[in-house]
Amino acid sequence: MRTAICTAILIPALLVPPLCGQTRDQELARALVRRALEDTAGYHLLRELTALGHRLPGSPGAARAVRWAERTMTSLGLDNVTLQECPVPRWERGERETACILDERGGSGEPLAVAALGTSVGTAPGGISAEVLEVQSFEELEARGAEAAGKIIFFNRPMDPGTITTFAAYGGAVGQRVQGAVKAAEAGGVAALVRSVTTKYDNVPHTGTMSYRDGVPKVPAAAIGLIDADRLSAALHDDPHLRVRLSLSCRNYPDTTSYTVFGQITGWEYPREIIVIGGHFDSWDKGVGAHDDGAGCIQALEVLTLFQRLGIRPKRTVRAVFFMNEEMGLSGADVYGRWTASNGEDHIAGIEADRGALTPRGFYVTASPERLEKIQSWLPLLQEACIDWVKKGGSGGDVARIHEPEALVGYVPDVQRYFDFHHSANDVFAEIHPREMELGSAAMAILVYLLAEYGL
Amino acid sequence: MRTAICTAILIPALLVPPLCGQTRDQELARALVRRALEDTAGYHLLRELTALGHRLPGSPGAARAVRWAERTMTSLGLDNVTLQECPVPRWERGERETACILDERGGSGEPLAVAALGTSVGTAPGGISAEVLEVQSFEELEARGAEAAGKIIFFNRPMDPGTITTFAAYGGAVGQRVQGAVKAAEAGGVAALVRSVTTKYDNVPHTGTMSYRDGVPKVPAAAIGLIDADRLSAALHDDPHLRVRLSLSCRNYPDTTSYTVFGQITGWEYPREIIVIGGHFDSWDKGVGAHDDGAGCIQALEVLTLFQRLGIRPKRTVRAVFFMNEEMGLSGADVYGRWTASNGEDHIAGIEADRGALTPRGFYVTASPERLEKIQSWLPLLQEACIDWVKKGGSGGDVARIHEPEALVGYVPDVQRYFDFHHSANDVFAEIHPREMELGSAAMAILVYLLAEYGL
Repeated sequence: MRTAICTAILIPALLVPPLCGQTRDQELARALVRRALEDTAGYHLLRELTALGHRLPGSPGAARAVRWAERTMTSLGLDNVTLQECPVPRWERGERETACILDERGGSGEPLAVAALGTSVGTAPGGISAEVLEVQSFEELEARGAEAAGKIIFFNRPMDPGTITTFAAYGGAVGQRVQGAVKAAEAGGVAALVRSVTTKYDNVPHTGTMSYRDGVPKVPAAAIGLIDADRLSAALHDDPHLRVRLSLSCRNYPDTTSYTVFGQITGWEYPREIIVIGGHFDSWDKGVGAHDDGAGCIQALEVLTLFQRLGIRPKRTVRAVFFMNEEMGLSGADVYGRWTASNGEDHIAGIEADRGALTPRGFYVTASPERLEKIQSWLPLLQEACIDWVKKGGSGGDVARIHEPEALVGYVPDVQRYFDFHHSANDVFAEIHPREMELGSAAMAILVYLLAEYGL
Repeated sequence: MRTAICTAILIPALLVPPLCGQTRDQELARALVRRALEDTAGYHLLRELTALGHRLPGSPGAARAVRWAERTMTSLGLDNVTLQECPVPRWERGERETACILDERGGSGEPLAVAALGTSVGTAPGGISAEVLEVQSFEELEARGAEAAGKIIFFNRPMDPGTITTFAAYGGAVGQRVQGAVKAAEAGGVAALVRSVTTKYDNVPHTGTMSYRDGVPKVPAAAIGLIDADRLSAALHDDPHLRVRLSLSCRNYPDTTSYTVFGQITGWEYPREIIVIGGHFDSWDKGVGAHDDGAGCIQALEVLTLFQRLGIRPKRTVRAVFFMNEEMGLSGADVYGRWTASNGEDHIAGIEADRGALTPRGFYVTASPERLEKIQSWLPLLQEACIDWVKKGGSGGDVARIHEPEALVGYVPDVQRYFDFHHSANDVFAEIHPREMELGSAAMAILVYLLAEYGL
């Protein structure tokens, strides 16, 4: 393999003496970065994918994307291209999705920008008209429980703007989206309206998962854009008895079947030692899941195509996995994970890219101290692709299901603007920056190359 | 001062024991970051500034901005608010700025998106109509010198996309913009048309400085958008004898006067030890210089206002300097630098922010190894604001004129998309991300606080 690489890299510059070990790895890292940035092949593949529409689990768009992925991996000459069946929920937004502040005569007054949360039940065709109780927390709702009966509960807690870690701020606010409907119903409310969990001050509602609980009535739940959340809050300040009408046509259908798609370059020396690199292939139905997580899947695929373009033959098997249905329950990851427990393969590493296609910053690693240290020793090579650090941290929900991996890795780009797009109509191809995306592909390609070459 | 800080920070949480040394500094760093992100005061100041229009040296917009800066610094209660006079060139673009590929009858055919380069001479009112010689380098122009006479020389070398350092790629391509007119004229050409030096594939021309040389005829020079550069190149491939008309009304006027503006918080213990933090206040006349370098100036100012908002009284003087006329010759920096040679002050550090208002990555430092090491020892504090590294490197043209500073520092954000905006109509306020800008202000505030507290 060393010979294979040296040949591929050095043929254009025959005067350069053959390189070995660290110098060769450095040259290879540089070549991966240059090739990614020059070709922007992943960027163009992502354009193709996102042109197919959104990829909500169980939707026609997701089915189109699965066929596209199989066709694309096959035409790229990957080994073992596989559609791995998994159950997925099926939920449809439908055409009717409106809210408004009612005027004095009960007519439609000021419209409010809303989007049903994923798996929410809909309303009757005429919608729900009710007074609104605004709260900042579940504790406040509990304290004001006597006021909640018959009302729309408006959870209006913003993300904490003061933390540098947008994912932490998301974690601190997303509970009202996930559990809001249950809490509202338990208090006697008739619906939940949730301030969008986003860092961007615009009026685009951000959807996402929510849950119901057995024994608690299922009430409809929707996200509201930030500008309208503030407008509604101001209007409630003026008139605490104002009424809002929320009308949603979304509904749940029986589970259906979809597929996780994967393909690989089989390791020439240790074919049963697997390095998985992947993202989730499904998206929300607002926008087209360009950052979340079309980009992560395509970056995973691009690691393999970069190896092809540079003639790199990995010692260990490198597998790009497009996990189906992360957003609504990780069912694709569950199936893949169960399979790895019994398929006779050893998973060296599972690398997940699911934080957007922004400029690389680092890698989070979950592994023994010795293995973490080994990956950290590669930092001078990873720096060729803007990676500044490797530290202990979480990977992502999909690869975390893999059976006994030696290491789990989360790719961490600059996430300051990630939640501007996340789960919303803002998550479109135009928000992808080719250099930022390609540097991510290159960073992961360097890491995967080193894992395939040296193991852990 | 320690008391002053502890009081300001800890009053809201009296149960927390008073903090000293490193723990106190860490708390202070966090408070600076949180306050910057929560208030986004700098972001809103930048909106005010950019609403005044562009700030081309010598233009009415620059004069408006100087008055705004003086008024703003004064109303913020800064000490020693000063307008420091400096000479500036005066060049105007004028209203006429067109190019087109002529049709067979010599009429205006396909328009080309162009923008005169700064200080370029204009054309006669009817423009220059000539055949075009496309070259990739000065070497190619020299080799093909016999073909150049009477032609428009089209320098079409792109930025190298394959390097991760966009500033290096810029450095590798900008020579054709700066020296293109001289090289064209020396070869007998009648004008220079230069592929825009940008990373964004659109049709927006990017302007910038260029130079003439005594004894070489002054020919007009303009940048052309990337899409039209490629279109022109393709058209030349089909018809090497096609003619282009370039018509520019730009012209140079006698030098005029403008001002570098500064204000400070005077150090309570060492008032004559100065930490300068600054950017350049002038901009190009395409766009409004939001990233380049309105943001850098406002971030410098925000360091001081963050100190005010948190009740931080620095031991050493912290001065925000808005240098005039970096783009057309650094005359403001020259005047400021000469002044520092004789004003009895010691400049501890000069920090420059002139790489865009994107997410922080690191600081470049020019200083003795001991001083560099001291600044590097503060990395755990700087990491609170997304700074991943402090290393040897260049600061920027403005602070580099300071007389015998102990350290020069360049603030380095993520620059992957910086040249998308740079020197063009893309450089507008809408391209500023509030979190990314504010994290930069906070990163510099932490560094400045430590310099003011501990010196070098």
